[in-house]
Amino acid sequence: MPLIFDKVRPIYRKGDSVYVLDQLALPGKTAYQKLSTPAEVERAIKTMVLRGAPLIGVAAAYGYALSAKGHKKLTPALQAKLARDAKMLLNSRPTAVNLKWGIEKMGKAACKLAGETGHFYRGLIAAADQILREDIATNLRMAAHGAKLLPKGARVLTICNTGALATAGVGTALGVVRMARKTRKLKHVWACETRPYLQGARLTMWELKIEGIPAELITDGMAAHIMKTEKPDAVLAGADRVAANGDAANKIGTYGLAILAKHHGIPFYIVAPSTTVDLSTPTGAQIPIEERSESEVIQVAGRLIAPKGTRARHPAFDATPASLITAIVTEKGVVKLPNKARLAKVMARP
Amino acid sequence: MPLIFDKVRPIYRKGDSVYVLDQLALPGKTAYQKLSTPAEVERAIKTMVLRGAPLIGVAAAYGYALSAKGHKKLTPALQAKLARDAKMLLNSRPTAVNLKWGIEKMGKAACKLAGETGHFYRGLIAAADQILREDIATNLRMAAHGAKLLPKGARVLTICNTGALATAGVGTALGVVRMARKTRKLKHVWACETRPYLQGARLTMWELKIEGIPAELITDGMAAHIMKTEKPDAVLAGADRVAANGDAANKIGTYGLAILAKHHGIPFYIVAPSTTVDLSTPTGAQIPIEERSESEVIQVAGRLIAPKGTRARHPAFDATPASLITAIVTEKGVVKLPNKARLAKVMARP
Repeated sequence: MPLIFDKVRPIYRKGDSVYVLDQLALPGKTAYQKLSTPAEVERAIKTMVLRGAPLIGVAAAYGYALSAKGHKKLTPALQAKLARDAKMLLNSRPTAVNLKWGIEKMGKAACKLAGETGHFYRGLIAAADQILREDIATNLRMAAHGAKLLPKGARVLTICNTGALATAGVGTALGVVRMARKTRKLKHVWACETRPYLQGARLTMWELKIEGIPAELITDGMAAHIMKTEKPDAVLAGADRVAANGDAANKIGTYGLAILAKHHGIPFYIVAPSTTVDLSTPTGAQIPIEERSESEVIQVAGRLIAPKGTRARHPAFDATPASLITAIVTEKGVVKLPNKARLAKVMARP
Repeated sequence: MPLIFDKVRPIYRKGDSVYVLDQLALPGKTAYQKLSTPAEVERAIKTMVLRGAPLIGVAAAYGYALSAKGHKKLTPALQAKLARDAKMLLNSRPTAVNLKWGIEKMGKAACKLAGETGHFYRGLIAAADQILREDIATNLRMAAHGAKLLPKGARVLTICNTGALATAGVGTALGVVRMARKTRKLKHVWACETRPYLQGARLTMWELKIEGIPAELITDGMAAHIMKTEKPDAVLAGADRVAANGDAANKIGTYGLAILAKHHGIPFYIVAPSTTVDLSTPTGAQIPIEERSESEVIQVAGRLIAPKGTRARHPAFDATPASLITAIVTEKGVVKLPNKARLAKVMARP
């Protein structure tokens, strides 16, 4: 399978720095930002230079490792610094649970490395590298599971960017699209532009163009009309957090798509790694929904689109109840008609 | 009631020209275009310098009148010219039936004036002026009917622009908002930005600001989340054509909102004058849905938001089945749970 990251990588490490593709500049410009400190990583996550739940998890892991730069041993002072930086990274964005997962995984690595002397920082960097590699492998397993759910000649509708730019690998929902295309099952994609950040227009269309996958961009308000008139075979979305009962938080607009898919009898799939599943959050009602700046709504590409002084809302995510989800696709397997028991069963797999 | 057009008028005639507010330049700039020929009127409608079904009807009527400029009598040559110009105006946009209504009304006026000598053109101008005045009166009656449907302290969600900028008067759906505010019933408005043309962000927020009505702008994808978390009392939309069975074509995104409203148990109202009801179109399936240029989707405010070469869809309207509509509000009265018989009964009123 030709991987997108043979062509372009959203994140890679070289020496003591992480290089991230500036997703705010795409598709106009392909430019990397060099991040060498935890604060620089935090800034990049907060301002959405990089985004996508799994990718945020990987970046946060590197941010944690960089906190220990130069330290061969874990000292009490370093321990305090690591705790501070971990907290800062954790607070950069509230909804994606992968962030928490990445930091916790690195915390455990730090504990393990604390006993060994001489290569504490190197050990952390290796642990973050491992998280990146695992994300790539996880993506491929999810993609294979998901592609099996699609019929031959599938035409699918998707939202936001859930591809290589949202992960370290082929992507979540867009990984399924890639795998289905590779196995000659996929015919067409409709990508919702996904206001306010336009990740669908800017990032998903860019990835699909690179892959040569036939696709059309639609505005978010066109989804219902496309479902009625074109009858897509499936709606594919990612997730930023899946609660224990199968409710899923994802990019604002996803909940509406799930209702529209149900109304039209179209299967609605959430594709997310097990690191996105948070069994400690009982239902979608407990998932914190990030409210971002109004200015991101009243501007497009830096230009004001509403009268000066316009008030706006900007919930960045919404929660889709499990009852609207046909299946949750993870690297551990597919959870059909998700509920607490079915989700727990699949999550218990190694 | 303080009328918006005391402050700014979307259209007015002075001498042998029609002046239309350039809605593509709003809210950045308040500028008028002077239209003195049918071709100039057609161009302005086609490029959406002015838009909104009722307003298009008024503008087309003036376009027809201007075709006879300088003619005191209806000659065979003028008759042929009027027919050509009428056809050109009719073809400027396919979905709004008010356009057809305006032209037909003027055609009848022309027949009536043909017998009288000496003031053919003046007569046509007077007929167009009358259409404009009637639209203003119609708006007020609709607004009064609609406002009665809202509870005290109403918080409503709306799409596109259905205000003074879509009509010659206070508006259709936004006319209801104005009347409800005037009668101290209205508390809050959520306006969907309405991509691709952003009529909600650019025009509706501009009108609401002028009126001092509390409002928040949302992206189209936020509607479902707002319905779930804020529980608006009603969704109010306009229409470009209502079929005989009560199906209604309106700005792309309206159909989706109707499904979402149904899912959340929120009343969904269509507000449109009887000139928008087309009893000769049996159902929504027969309403022609205009497909506009892809470039209007892949650009925002003149800036490319997707990779070069991106393909896009651009249906400008969608059709909402009557089964999703709680009531259609017209100047002749309210059609609750619309169907063919109920709609015909109200339309038969004088």
